[in-house]
Amino acid sequence: MDFVTGLRCRECGRSYPAEALHVCDFCFGPLEVAYDYERLAAAVSKEAIAAGPASMWRYRPLLPVDDPNPIDLGAGWTPLVRADRLAAELGLRELWIKNDTANPTGSFKDRVVSVALTKARQLGFKVAACASTGNLANSVAAHAARAGMASVVFIPEDLERAKVVTTAVYGGTVVAVRGTYDDVNRLCAELTSERPDWAFVNVNVRTYYAEGSKTLAFEVAEQLGWQAPDHVVVPVASGSQLTKVRKGFAELHQVGLLPEPPAVRVSGAQAAGCSPVAQAFADGTDAIRPVRPQTIAKSLAIGNPADGWYALRAVRETGGALAAVSDEEVLEGIRLLARTEGIFAETAGGVTIASLVRLVQQGVVRPDERVVCFVTGHGLKTVEALTGVVGPTATIAPTLEAFEEAVGAELDADRRTR
Amino acid sequence: MDFVTGLRCRECGRSYPAEALHVCDFCFGPLEVAYDYERLAAAVSKEAIAAGPASMWRYRPLLPVDDPNPIDLGAGWTPLVRADRLAAELGLRELWIKNDTANPTGSFKDRVVSVALTKARQLGFKVAACASTGNLANSVAAHAARAGMASVVFIPEDLERAKVVTTAVYGGTVVAVRGTYDDVNRLCAELTSERPDWAFVNVNVRTYYAEGSKTLAFEVAEQLGWQAPDHVVVPVASGSQLTKVRKGFAELHQVGLLPEPPAVRVSGAQAAGCSPVAQAFADGTDAIRPVRPQTIAKSLAIGNPADGWYALRAVRETGGALAAVSDEEVLEGIRLLARTEGIFAETAGGVTIASLVRLVQQGVVRPDERVVCFVTGHGLKTVEALTGVVGPTATIAPTLEAFEEAVGAELDADRRTR
Repeated sequence: MDFVTGLRCRECGRSYPAEALHVCDFCFGPLEVAYDYERLAAAVSKEAIAAGPASMWRYRPLLPVDDPNPIDLGAGWTPLVRADRLAAELGLRELWIKNDTANPTGSFKDRVVSVALTKARQLGFKVAACASTGNLANSVAAHAARAGMASVVFIPEDLERAKVVTTAVYGGTVVAVRGTYDDVNRLCAELTSERPDWAFVNVNVRTYYAEGSKTLAFEVAEQLGWQAPDHVVVPVASGSQLTKVRKGFAELHQVGLLPEPPAVRVSGAQAAGCSPVAQAFADGTDAIRPVRPQTIAKSLAIGNPADGWYALRAVRETGGALAAVSDEEVLEGIRLLARTEGIFAETAGGVTIASLVRLVQQGVVRPDERVVCFVTGHGLKTVEALTGVVGPTATIAPTLEAFEEAVGAELDADRRTR
Repeated sequence: MDFVTGLRCRECGRSYPAEALHVCDFCFGPLEVAYDYERLAAAVSKEAIAAGPASMWRYRPLLPVDDPNPIDLGAGWTPLVRADRLAAELGLRELWIKNDTANPTGSFKDRVVSVALTKARQLGFKVAACASTGNLANSVAAHAARAGMASVVFIPEDLERAKVVTTAVYGGTVVAVRGTYDDVNRLCAELTSERPDWAFVNVNVRTYYAEGSKTLAFEVAEQLGWQAPDHVVVPVASGSQLTKVRKGFAELHQVGLLPEPPAVRVSGAQAAGCSPVAQAFADGTDAIRPVRPQTIAKSLAIGNPADGWYALRAVRETGGALAAVSDEEVLEGIRLLARTEGIFAETAGGVTIASLVRLVQQGVVRPDERVVCFVTGHGLKTVEALTGVVGPTATIAPTLEAFEEAVGAELDADRRTR
């Protein structure tokens, strides 16, 4: 049962068949998947979803590929954790963390890749490819291995070691490129025409790929008891995730799973060292000026974001805002989340938490709102960022005396004075 | 509703109240939690479990702590993945991977820690402590942070960097000890009497802690449609996990969730550089001789395993076997699982997969069995082990020409000859 009616240009509205197309031939606007929402409304139910798998594929009718056996490592259905201790520090009433570090390869990219490669396989592609800042590379290589597809993954040369190893271990081809992500992306755009039989998940099958991010919104709503939050804070790299989270909440109403049209305020998080969308927001302009990234948040280091303008519009239309935070704030954000809630996020998650802090200070995120913050990658992926920042309290010989001298007495004194 | 009747000595059967006790005062045997299985049988149902949370706490009645708000980061309910590509390489009919890398801190330890700290809090402890080879340290520090408890975590000095950072980031006290895990453990055993107000999760609350591993068996059975597998392969460090997996399957029958008494063969996996239990099995003796560990599988590097004898007995009684594999086989095991199934395991997972390979070759694991392999930690935790082993295929300038020269032509030739 497929509810996709085709692809449609986001700009001029022209229709296309559901093939490996991503750009409108007439106006060069990006294409988006179109669904028959009336038929969908009749077909979906909370009960059917609840009886589905404990993964993002519980929302299969709302995804753009109809395959009873998707390429699936178990992406999605990650914990939505109530963060009372963090909320107390920030003066918020109700804060939730969508902990998407708990995906199979440790980031939300598993959601988009699972959709993209399942569709690519259906369309007859035998090779999975991508340009990546790291997380996408991990996920494409893993899902391709699972499916027995070949993979060719392009990454900037200066990536974190963990992300390189976690890509190469799956046995596909890994090409390190001397340049930024934007250089890598440009090369892949050229290669897409040279290698029409390769599925570049974020180029020629991007239309399908991007839809995977909607499941973040679906899950949040279901986990809140089929309610939308008041405000979400979403990291911005290409901008795709933010726009799709908004679309996800809207679709739930269109198919009758949310009774009211959701009024979710959408805010975005960027690192100051790569903040073209936040800068445009601050300047009150529509023009997003490309930048050369310089930040420890490498997974967000897209200087020329494909969906930046759409993200900007979504933020403005919903009354949200965009923050740009320094690398120091990113590290502080990682430690704040870890210390209060026991969740270790990669640098991108530090950007999101630091942006939340900033938006609370600015009064954008309000104390009485129900807030959901998307933490989208695991801290194990960017251990470098914290080396020298955190470490053992002490190193001792294996004796009681050594312990008491180095740590014990101080700990006890500390506890007595509390 | 609590179904715990108390603690009972595994050796002499004496009863104790459900407090922070772990050793029998009379015979020094280890204590185990006792349940009222008759009342449990009347209380549990497949339906109630299915309606529970998407975490290990769906089995709350079968766990030794009754708390509607456990200290919970979302441990458990991890994917059980059918591994047809790996099965084909090994000549097996039906192989499943229990992918416990997908836990909040990246290892199965989240299961035992969630139970241990919830019980410790209930018993009035304010400080969470442990001796750890790394994964337990990560998990104790994270769960303590989540609960707002203080934590004091002891690790061997030579631990992988990722595991040190992933412990320290949560803001607790981290003590690096110059010595092996067994030295660290000895120090903690001494400290337990010096600091009676600290909950050492694997010492004075070990009785509760260990019960968390039963949920591995519970989940496997539920995910197989309430059936037990024929054969499980489980990594052996202290030996606790293996014995509790066996106990978990047995309990499901005791409470009526499995119709037949399960006949699950249980096999164990060790690294040759730390294989005291496998050695005793090979020698046909009951005496487990402590060893000084020397292996890249640091999370299994327990030279004097507390539950080694019980693990050995479980393996023998069920007709399983124990394998001991070299570090080279461990790396090959990691790559085999990654290449065929898209799952990146830490070195301990490499031990388990390499042991599976060995046990298949030896005819212990039989082609017609339904086999489940427990992969218990994420590869991101032991990236060091693969550095220099896997890496980029090529490093190129960001141009089509550079790509074609370095990789493209070869890839195309490769595909044409297939």
